[in-house]
Amino acid sequence: MPREIRLNAFDMACIGHIQHGMWTHPRDRSTDYRRLEYWTGLARTLERGLFDGLFLADVVGVYDLLGGRPDAALRQAVQVPLLDPMLLVPAMAAATRHLGFGVTVNCSYEPAALLARRFSTLDHLTEGRIGWNIVTGYLDSAARAMGLAAQPAHDDRYAAAETVMDAAYGLWEGSWGEGAVRADRAAGVYADPMRVRLVRAGGIEAIHLCEPSPQRTPVLYQAGASERGRAFAARHAECVFLNPSSPENVARLVADLRARAAPRPIRVFVGATLILGRTGAEARDLLEEYRRHASTEGALAHASASLGIDFDRFGLDEPVAATGSNAIASNVEAMARVFGPGWTKRHLIDQFVLGSRQKPLVGGPDEVAEALIAFCEATGADGFNLSRTIMPECIEAVADLLVPALQERGAYKRGYAPGSYREKLFGAGPLLAPPHPAAAWRG
Amino acid sequence: MPREIRLNAFDMACIGHIQHGMWTHPRDRSTDYRRLEYWTGLARTLERGLFDGLFLADVVGVYDLLGGRPDAALRQAVQVPLLDPMLLVPAMAAATRHLGFGVTVNCSYEPAALLARRFSTLDHLTEGRIGWNIVTGYLDSAARAMGLAAQPAHDDRYAAAETVMDAAYGLWEGSWGEGAVRADRAAGVYADPMRVRLVRAGGIEAIHLCEPSPQRTPVLYQAGASERGRAFAARHAECVFLNPSSPENVARLVADLRARAAPRPIRVFVGATLILGRTGAEARDLLEEYRRHASTEGALAHASASLGIDFDRFGLDEPVAATGSNAIASNVEAMARVFGPGWTKRHLIDQFVLGSRQKPLVGGPDEVAEALIAFCEATGADGFNLSRTIMPECIEAVADLLVPALQERGAYKRGYAPGSYREKLFGAGPLLAPPHPAAAWRG
Repeated sequence: MPREIRLNAFDMACIGHIQHGMWTHPRDRSTDYRRLEYWTGLARTLERGLFDGLFLADVVGVYDLLGGRPDAALRQAVQVPLLDPMLLVPAMAAATRHLGFGVTVNCSYEPAALLARRFSTLDHLTEGRIGWNIVTGYLDSAARAMGLAAQPAHDDRYAAAETVMDAAYGLWEGSWGEGAVRADRAAGVYADPMRVRLVRAGGIEAIHLCEPSPQRTPVLYQAGASERGRAFAARHAECVFLNPSSPENVARLVADLRARAAPRPIRVFVGATLILGRTGAEARDLLEEYRRHASTEGALAHASASLGIDFDRFGLDEPVAATGSNAIASNVEAMARVFGPGWTKRHLIDQFVLGSRQKPLVGGPDEVAEALIAFCEATGADGFNLSRTIMPECIEAVADLLVPALQERGAYKRGYAPGSYREKLFGAGPLLAPPHPAAAWRG
Repeated sequence: MPREIRLNAFDMACIGHIQHGMWTHPRDRSTDYRRLEYWTGLARTLERGLFDGLFLADVVGVYDLLGGRPDAALRQAVQVPLLDPMLLVPAMAAATRHLGFGVTVNCSYEPAALLARRFSTLDHLTEGRIGWNIVTGYLDSAARAMGLAAQPAHDDRYAAAETVMDAAYGLWEGSWGEGAVRADRAAGVYADPMRVRLVRAGGIEAIHLCEPSPQRTPVLYQAGASERGRAFAARHAECVFLNPSSPENVARLVADLRARAAPRPIRVFVGATLILGRTGAEARDLLEEYRRHASTEGALAHASASLGIDFDRFGLDEPVAATGSNAIASNVEAMARVFGPGWTKRHLIDQFVLGSRQKPLVGGPDEVAEALIAFCEATGADGFNLSRTIMPECIEAVADLLVPALQERGAYKRGYAPGSYREKLFGAGPLLAPPHPAAAWRG
């Protein structure tokens, strides 16, 4: 019996997320991203497909590295325009019962107390279905938008994030004790002040504004794959999102993360792009059809930003000197690992398939199901964050074609487990347990 | 023909908002504030009653002035626990078509770029039904929760707010020009970079992350009644919320605000609490029934915080020295104006009726309708922000009893006007027009 595979949809409140140019396909509906119905429809389809969650990415700046301008990103709608992802969740929660929501929020620029209240609010409103993908940002354009000259250095961003986590854990787990909410109409006592504590942590002094939500702390996601990022994940994360790479590399990262986090369990989701047809031939036809809409300019604007390199400054075969990058450290390391230190813009562009460096997995339901099962067996990963191609048909194909094929092989659930997002993911209680640092605030 | 009266529901994502203790009434459902269905049900009732909007209050600290502790506020659920109000809007928007949403957000503690993105997101998702009640806060407990020692002085908070407004207007109105969004699939161009501008304003440098929303700038509410608050309102506000006071005082404030803002129109909403019965006798019975649940402790905790005075330090008949207050300046001024400079705690407590200083207007539909019409005639106010007593019966009574009585008198609409919140309020276009400072960023 293969292990159970878990699926998240990997999306973003924008038009071009990973596969750039797809919005120009006549069937693609991603330009409806401003409409609530677009998101509630997506949420219902995901729940039909028994997806564990919808993972929403976010950035708080624009991609202006390529040519030193945001022009390519704007033309190709590369993660701009972009809405606030948290605000999509309440309407989707009202339209579903089980789907989890993993929302990316940058913790570098907002007071921990307000961030903590937002997540507690969503945990209440979703009845325990919220997760937080903790990011620290990588864009100088974001820092300037916040009134700063530039962002702090890579590892300093993680140090600042540790302070935010301290404050947030204090508020979520330490401020309102067990039994603090009495809601006793006859006695006229809602909360017992003896069980509510002023928390001093991470530089703040506050009572959490929210009473305890079903999970208290949201399910914690993290995606940093650098040395510093992995140390942060080992301390905080319950789920880790890895960018796609070779099975060997993923297996190594999974083993490393699990060893670092032990005895805490870690769920690992790997990025993947699927093109599914009823048959392999139909899937390959779809790939050719979609490819005609891929945008190299969009992919290059995106890669410039996430690697911290202005590719307009380099000829196609000129080695790319990336020494000055203060962006996503693990991305730069990955390029050098795969192509050697003298890698060029041509190496990058040759990777692009659907307007992205993410190579799609193309095939009929059986073929793709078996490839995903084999990948999880080989790597120890728990499942996949599936990025979108043409919306909504790519998600409908997962629900209608892939999920039954996985179910037939005993590799996919046939119904949701009861309880909160954390209970569905780990099969234990709704709250973080020791030795997670958040749990130390309780009892 | 009397002028048209407009109604907002005045609410907050908490249990005790204005009328403290009402949650202990067996029919009150305000303890369901954590459930989406509570809010979507409220929104549907408001739309049935043709309310212009739902006005959501907010604070980002706790009421810990009374006795120097938050105990009374916690016991009586006085605006704590409290959810983030913005996150209630998307589900309510999905459940309605016309209702507007005026959301209070404190602009003292969050980056303008993120605040601007949140409002643009809500303006998109609601299809142009969002408003912002601009506040600067008044609680030292909030400042400490943000990692500060104390909040800035009253007038300095308004000066900081001017900087935030500059940045927000630049982003909403100046960053994406007319025609910037081409969404041209054939040409493969979503946005025209020549029409998207990097905005430098209010200390930030940014491209707005969102494409233009229906209203660009949310409908701007303001509630400050101090000298500095009125100057701010005259420059920025489209709607002003006034606390209830005598018709003479309201008339004076309305005239002053309109003179300061001219030629810009200002809509003025006055706080009110109604107890409606099918007859006057039934309403007076309800008042007596509700009164048994009023909490003096809750009202005192609330008043302590909003006046910036610890009433535990004063005997009942001891003159209250408020010279040190750095809270809501206009509240302190109002007490001295009504009761003289030697006012005491007894003056305050004698005002409490339903766990609040807000005196309810009690009567049958005709009686209340005529009183509201007379008040608007005498003051020039446009309508009322109706605070709640027992939920949801107090709102259902407005929709079912008061609205028909107002309609019979020609003082209430019989259907919603078309268009965005701004169009419904002012009958002109969806965008702010000159001479409002936001409009200067366009064209």
